Amino acid sequence: MATSVQKNLSESNEKYVSTFDKGHLALPPSKKYLVLTCMDARIDPAAAFGIDLGDAHVIRNAGANAADAFRSIVISEQLLGTQEILLIKHTGCGMLTFENSDAYAIVEKNLGPEAHSELKQRQIDFGPFPQLDKAVEDDVALLKGSKLVPDSVAISGWVYEVETGRVRKVV
Amino acid sequence: MATSVQKNLSESNEKYVSTFDKGHLALPPSKKYLVLTCMDARIDPAAAFGIDLGDAHVIRNAGANAADAFRSIVISEQLLGTQEILLIKHTGCGMLTFENSDAYAIVEKNLGPEAHSELKQRQIDFGPFPQLDKAVEDDVALLKGSKLVPDSVAISGWVYEVETGRVRKVV
Repeated sequence: MATSVQKNLSESNEKYVSTFDKGHLALPPSKKYLVLTCMDARIDPAAAFGIDLGDAHVIRNAGANAADAFRSIVISEQLLGTQEILLIKHTGCGMLTFENSDAYAIVEKNLGPEAHSELKQRQIDFGPFPQLDKAVEDDVALLKGSKLVPDSVAISGWVYEVETGRVRKVV
Repeated sequence: MATSVQKNLSESNEKYVSTFDKGHLALPPSKKYLVLTCMDARIDPAAAFGIDLGDAHVIRNAGANAADAFRSIVISEQLLGTQEILLIKHTGCGMLTFENSDAYAIVEKNLGPEAHSELKQRQIDFGPFPQLDKAVEDDVALLKGSKLVPDSVAISGWVYEVETGRVRKVV
């Protein structure tokens, strides 16, 4: 039986389909850029960052973590023509609120020692950060320093304010 | 100097800010679910899947790859209360079009042997898949089989058709 979340997906999607007219778009992003931002529920990248359907790849994970996104970034720029990266972290991010050891302890307490072992086996670094702007600078530096992102790819770093909806450039 | 992509971000965002009235939303997703989907430029999760601002975490990577999303998923369900996962892959996905060896060869050809070494050092599996529905089933099974996702978390798998805008449930 469908959950209420699944019903919402099906019902909302029927409405979306009824006016959908973008079935002709090509696979590669037409504006040749990608946005890397956080999974946070308070961010709507298309609306807040002016991304029309078909324009750009959008990568989202906990904290807009660059190290975690290398696989997707390389596919985007090496296979699908992306030439620019916008990295956008945000105020009020959950990643500002804990440390790796806290998260490991919570997993062990809630899910048991086997789950704790799986975390280690998957080499999971949760990637928390103590300072927002510094984290943006560090992740932009990580991308710029990587051989996997050629110098021809423009990279900028931003902060989105969940309180105001505003973005500001950091680097 | 700002690129045209950066100018578009700043200008579009000014318009967004001018009508923004959601600065009060809480950090945890109010509807306690997460959507894991692809970074593909032809997907607008909020519009196509009925996600209002504040409702749900949205994780996006190349191929809606579950293995690549464990860090974010664990943060979502262990630290921020998520109780349900919708995994949504899509037709026309780039991940259907190549194999790992192809991508490794392209990186070495375009970016050189040091980049190829960095791929290996980062243990990057690009995660291509030959069959779409099977890939949805496999990734749902991976999540259900993981100790990091408790049995209490509902998980369903879907396909989004980029040609029609329609979602259909696979599992």
